Amino acid sequence: VANRVISFARGAPAPECLPAAELADCARAALERDGATALGYGPATGYPPLRNWLAQRHGVAPERILVTNSSLQAFAFLVQHLAAGSRPRVLVEAPTYDRPLKILAAHGADVVALPMDEDGLDPDALERELDAGDASLLYTIPTFQNPSGRTLSLERRRRVAAIAAERGLLVLEDDPYGLVRFEGDALPPLFELEGGERVVYGSSFSKTIAPGLRVGWLVAPEPLAAALAELAVSTYISPVVPTQATVYEFLRRGHFESNLERVRGLLRARRDAMLGALERELPAGATWSEPNGGYFVWVDLAAGIDTRELLTRASAAGVTFVAGTDFFPSGAGGESALRLAYSFVSPEEIAEGIGRFGSLLPEPARRGR
Amino acid sequence: VANRVISFARGAPAPECLPAAELADCARAALERDGATALGYGPATGYPPLRNWLAQRHGVAPERILVTNSSLQAFAFLVQHLAAGSRPRVLVEAPTYDRPLKILAAHGADVVALPMDEDGLDPDALERELDAGDASLLYTIPTFQNPSGRTLSLERRRRVAAIAAERGLLVLEDDPYGLVRFEGDALPPLFELEGGERVVYGSSFSKTIAPGLRVGWLVAPEPLAAALAELAVSTYISPVVPTQATVYEFLRRGHFESNLERVRGLLRARRDAMLGALERELPAGATWSEPNGGYFVWVDLAAGIDTRELLTRASAAGVTFVAGTDFFPSGAGGESALRLAYSFVSPEEIAEGIGRFGSLLPEPARRGR
Repeated sequence: VANRVISFARGAPAPECLPAAELADCARAALERDGATALGYGPATGYPPLRNWLAQRHGVAPERILVTNSSLQAFAFLVQHLAAGSRPRVLVEAPTYDRPLKILAAHGADVVALPMDEDGLDPDALERELDAGDASLLYTIPTFQNPSGRTLSLERRRRVAAIAAERGLLVLEDDPYGLVRFEGDALPPLFELEGGERVVYGSSFSKTIAPGLRVGWLVAPEPLAAALAELAVSTYISPVVPTQATVYEFLRRGHFESNLERVRGLLRARRDAMLGALERELPAGATWSEPNGGYFVWVDLAAGIDTRELLTRASAAGVTFVAGTDFFPSGAGGESALRLAYSFVSPEEIAEGIGRFGSLLPEPARRGR
Repeated sequence: VANRVISFARGAPAPECLPAAELADCARAALERDGATALGYGPATGYPPLRNWLAQRHGVAPERILVTNSSLQAFAFLVQHLAAGSRPRVLVEAPTYDRPLKILAAHGADVVALPMDEDGLDPDALERELDAGDASLLYTIPTFQNPSGRTLSLERRRRVAAIAAERGLLVLEDDPYGLVRFEGDALPPLFELEGGERVVYGSSFSKTIAPGLRVGWLVAPEPLAAALAELAVSTYISPVVPTQATVYEFLRRGHFESNLERVRGLLRARRDAMLGALERELPAGATWSEPNGGYFVWVDLAAGIDTRELLTRASAAGVTFVAGTDFFPSGAGGESALRLAYSFVSPEEIAEGIGRFGSLLPEPARRGR
């Protein structure tokens, strides 16, 4: 640990989370069993056995599933679809995942930031923005949000689902982290509460199996799924097939739940290490989220501390994070905030790294607990 | 063969072309050897060992290589890049591969068709169009072109390369079929003749290993490669990694050349069967290309025969192809032409299918040879 840079910037699973030996065997078995299909061009909508598995899991017809090379790629198709012909107005949480913001900017979208608190996005603000003008899409990560680690409360889920249904608002519920829950009961997805007519559900196997596979999917109303499949076929003909077949083999062998339980345990220990270290090292006045799952803690270091400037000093001291401003659509907001990912680092590295980080903060205010 | 539909529409390798057993073992070995890397997020530019292999093969720095989920995906990034800010004017061969035409249309490009003959695109027409206005890109498939099977002559290659250099014309040389040559010596790529400053080279392992892998790449000047890598990271973070690692293992074991030789033999027999059947079954007045490699024969059935109408009758008779008009940017051109793919069907199916096809053509004119 001593001299290595400790990265709280990488929102990626640690190598020990990846079931490499099982996947190696699944990759071989999938190609031995179904090589002619898995090595040829596949359907743009996904490898059929995997698509059927996902359809069963979500309780929908397979025609509503679109498997893509990562869920971000699916988001890009959705935005491309919405931006064809007119400039889309897209509502996002502030803060939100930065990569979708880049895709929205590249397509010239009018991006509107919705405020959040510890219970997730503010439904009153959502209603106000819908009163102010039609929206093409609400993009939300209701569970263990990136970057904040926050989870939309059940009451707010019901309101957002009702707003979507009443106003005909298209919602993309991005849910990569929902299954990576350490404690407490899962909350129902917006997709289920609304009925899946206006809420499109997106997820991936990046956090539950391995991100290098780049297997994501959407559950959308059939006409939308078909329109996005048209974009997919025009972009890459079909998503990469052998990795989909490998995932399917992994599922078919029943590895999914046991692996997920193992991953939850590894990440729970990291989350605990992170919250403990923050409690020890951060000054009075600093606040942070306390996620029940996922990869991230969102820290706010009280006004006056510029986390972009702090990042420069932190990098020099051997610890990195992502500055809060990266997660706001306008670049305004989050000046004193930052995202800490605990997923890629060991509990020991977390203790050491947060120690380094805390030592950079104003001394007088440190709690020293 | 009797009652099955025979598809000359599918430009895909027959299952027996796919080295499934070797790839199954390579997939396992790649994940066993380098699972932590191959299962995590990778660089947007590609799996480093594969990128380095490609750089060596093309004699360029690795920074000039961008590996993508299929070469079509790379084309989509290039067009997205060119279309940012202004409407690109793009020169294409007529006929040309239909999927790029869809991508160009989706980005609102002004697409200009360049006429071809048996020696490929007409350089005089290229010069005339450049005199008429600046072009953002020339998109060309110089070797065993899709859909025509035609190959740009050496003399014309030299002229196109010189035009690109003199006029600063950006060229995308799409070369998926070049290595699938049945006889004769390979012609130098435009990329080599021009020196790779204005000519971007694109290819994939779809025709030399397996298309389901969806591993394609570009060789571009470093600033352009970097700009496209930015689009890649914003679209899918990284291309799918285990399949790239599988391809690299296949290369590392030295399977590439021996497999390619095997594939060439399988496809040569199909090409021979196709040309023989056309000679037997097509009426006087019909002409067709005689490719030395690749997947396709382009047939022109003399004026007055509408191949879209013919396709309806052919499908009913159990044989399919792609009508020529699909390969023209405006939809005008190719009315009496069609593309026949011999890659997916056996020599026996080719004989039977072209027999069915020929029986639909005007009787009096049939050669009956």
